[in-house]
Amino acid sequence: MPSAEVVSIGTELLLGQVLDTNSQFLAVELAKLGIESYFRSTVGDNKPRIRSVLRQALERSDILITTGGLGPTADDLTTECIADLLETELFFDEEIWDFIKKLFASRNFPIPDSNRKQALRPLGADILHNPVGSAPGMIWKLGEAELTKIGLKDASKPRVILTFPGVPRELTEMWHQIAVPFLRSHFAAGVLWSTELKHYGIGESALAEQYAHLLDLSNPTVAPYAGHAECRLRVTAKASTVEEAKALAAPVLEEIKRDSAHRCYGDDTDTLESVVGRLLKQGSLKLSVAESCTGGLVSQRLTDIPGSSSYIALNVVTYSNEAKMDILRVSQQTLDTEGAVSEKCAEEMAKGALLLGHADLALSITGIAGPDGGTAEKPVGTVFLGLAAKDFYVGKSLKLGKVSGRTEVRFRTSQEALNMVRLFLIDRSLLAPKSLSAKP
Amino acid sequence: MPSAEVVSIGTELLLGQVLDTNSQFLAVELAKLGIESYFRSTVGDNKPRIRSVLRQALERSDILITTGGLGPTADDLTTECIADLLETELFFDEEIWDFIKKLFASRNFPIPDSNRKQALRPLGADILHNPVGSAPGMIWKLGEAELTKIGLKDASKPRVILTFPGVPRELTEMWHQIAVPFLRSHFAAGVLWSTELKHYGIGESALAEQYAHLLDLSNPTVAPYAGHAECRLRVTAKASTVEEAKALAAPVLEEIKRDSAHRCYGDDTDTLESVVGRLLKQGSLKLSVAESCTGGLVSQRLTDIPGSSSYIALNVVTYSNEAKMDILRVSQQTLDTEGAVSEKCAEEMAKGALLLGHADLALSITGIAGPDGGTAEKPVGTVFLGLAAKDFYVGKSLKLGKVSGRTEVRFRTSQEALNMVRLFLIDRSLLAPKSLSAKP
Repeated sequence: MPSAEVVSIGTELLLGQVLDTNSQFLAVELAKLGIESYFRSTVGDNKPRIRSVLRQALERSDILITTGGLGPTADDLTTECIADLLETELFFDEEIWDFIKKLFASRNFPIPDSNRKQALRPLGADILHNPVGSAPGMIWKLGEAELTKIGLKDASKPRVILTFPGVPRELTEMWHQIAVPFLRSHFAAGVLWSTELKHYGIGESALAEQYAHLLDLSNPTVAPYAGHAECRLRVTAKASTVEEAKALAAPVLEEIKRDSAHRCYGDDTDTLESVVGRLLKQGSLKLSVAESCTGGLVSQRLTDIPGSSSYIALNVVTYSNEAKMDILRVSQQTLDTEGAVSEKCAEEMAKGALLLGHADLALSITGIAGPDGGTAEKPVGTVFLGLAAKDFYVGKSLKLGKVSGRTEVRFRTSQEALNMVRLFLIDRSLLAPKSLSAKP
Repeated sequence: MPSAEVVSIGTELLLGQVLDTNSQFLAVELAKLGIESYFRSTVGDNKPRIRSVLRQALERSDILITTGGLGPTADDLTTECIADLLETELFFDEEIWDFIKKLFASRNFPIPDSNRKQALRPLGADILHNPVGSAPGMIWKLGEAELTKIGLKDASKPRVILTFPGVPRELTEMWHQIAVPFLRSHFAAGVLWSTELKHYGIGESALAEQYAHLLDLSNPTVAPYAGHAECRLRVTAKASTVEEAKALAAPVLEEIKRDSAHRCYGDDTDTLESVVGRLLKQGSLKLSVAESCTGGLVSQRLTDIPGSSSYIALNVVTYSNEAKMDILRVSQQTLDTEGAVSEKCAEEMAKGALLLGHADLALSITGIAGPDGGTAEKPVGTVFLGLAAKDFYVGKSLKLGKVSGRTEVRFRTSQEALNMVRLFLIDRSLLAPKSLSAKP
């Protein structure tokens, strides 16, 4: 399999002034073409350093892709460094210059002299046209003669250099229009297709143990990853077409979906809130949420899904005892004897929200998000959840500890709350008391 | 000046499945400490490759910082590769193991055997504690003896290795709590002190024009940045102590705060919600929020602030017309003649929330977040806001356009809503009708 190395050039990247999204874009695109990537490098605007990084990339990969450093200013050094490295001259390319002049004319901009620099091209390299900006790149196919001349290791293996500007919109246009067809015809051996199966209610290491027999597979490969209060199993297959790759992955995906049953809630773009939304829509059901310690987070997540107004009618955030009594009809007695953070209060809140929202299903959350307000009996991170429907109620409690902080207690609670709704909607027996010891 | 190289470890980065935001975070942080960065590298989960990249980084930099590869699974290789590279043994650290066991116990997770791996530490390295997760890192100060043993160039120059997990939240906590004080005491030559003044209600270029005379200063430097629906002016001063740097910056900060008046809402860790919270607390006032299109986002932001239960009593998310009538007493006539997305409905919602929440101040939001639901007269992005107090009411409308998408319409609306409350609390005359044309 051919391999590529992306080298991002620019001091602004090393200062963190710009987030390097080009590298991620190129990584995904290379994987789609079945081109491997073992290394990625970033270097500032400095000639000796750029040269050393470019040389190293050419040594260890078949394809060198650079981003950045093609502009008209003094710190744009990419083209010059490549000519230096390959021990060749730069010449002024009239064809590029004409293109740049036309581009400026079309924008009614006078053309600064400094832009002449962008018409320079190393002898031997081809132009990689830029349809949307003034910085063209190059495509340079390097053969044994050129590579031997500079003393490169494995000089008999051909190499290719492609250079792109750092502006994401220009890079993506040039990539799709020119680089993809070029790479496909010269290198692409097949495709790398991958999907992620998202799990809730199991940790990364437990997931790895459960699927230990799959983690050693070579095609497809299976790897567990920790997410934010959830876990993912990534399944990746290599083949010559996407269809073949999917077919290779299919038996493994089926096995995981079967064995993970209610823990695997979706894939790739699914979120707990989008899955809950889909299930509510399918069942033509309305959900109401009464939140205390999460302060509207669950409501916000649910309503972030387009079309959620069809299944969310009314949610309330009842922080104070008065609001819990006034709006949700939580009893004074419960608040006096059990407190607002209690199993009983969660139950009354859920049942109150069911009535108030004229809903089919109601979720309640009351707890102590911290950092203050904890007691020995109910430390920070103590949360009670309730889920009520007509003829159904289940409660659950969490002890999330204070270590993770207020925002984290709230987020983890929202994950658990959304998952309770999901379990109810796929099979309410999963919420039977015996399963309540399942870990969050 | 000391130099650092960040090495990001993980095949998921080379496949583009994860965007490497840690590198940018670390780049900004290193610059703040006055530590240079000349290179950055990314490598997949492969022992020989990781070792070669780590060795190279140690050769060309004083400080090697790794992210990723500290998890419990077989493809987490960072610690092992560092021990290999430094030709030392791994030992099982009971102190780390105790910490991990406690963490699992606090979350009610059984501890899988594979997590024992995370308690391994190379002989000679110190623990870099992880206060929020099970993957501790290491801090390893390497002297001439250790560097000579492995034949490193410039072995007389001391080096340091710091390892962090790839989970951004864990990395940032460990960075601020442990790495910053460590690096500051060992490496920082002088200090670079900087602060950001956050502005709402003015764009980046207008801000740059207003303070054009400050942007050419050399110490302190002043630079404008676009934020997310807000803008920032960063003021950075260099000196030998923090006190001196602050003194250098002080006159500029005073000027900006004076001239930006009500647009500069705070600095660094301030958010609109924290500033609103502080002002409500100072005035012993209670706020109620009635949201429609923002679906709980404003409530969630307000309650993300510790102690917000003292000024937030009751918030509601009334998506349906029924909920608006039932709970907030919006009139049938208003909904019939003006519709739920209207100035009048916003007013009735705010006044209803004021009564319902027994509040001193109530905010209402109704609009069309999209992607569907827009009309010619009220396109996606049309939002009406209302702010009611005893003897006070002001309304405002926004046209945010559909281009920015549902999440963005919701976020921008929440910024405007929080800023309305803020202006009311600092000087309600800022909300007088004549100022309503101010841009969002």
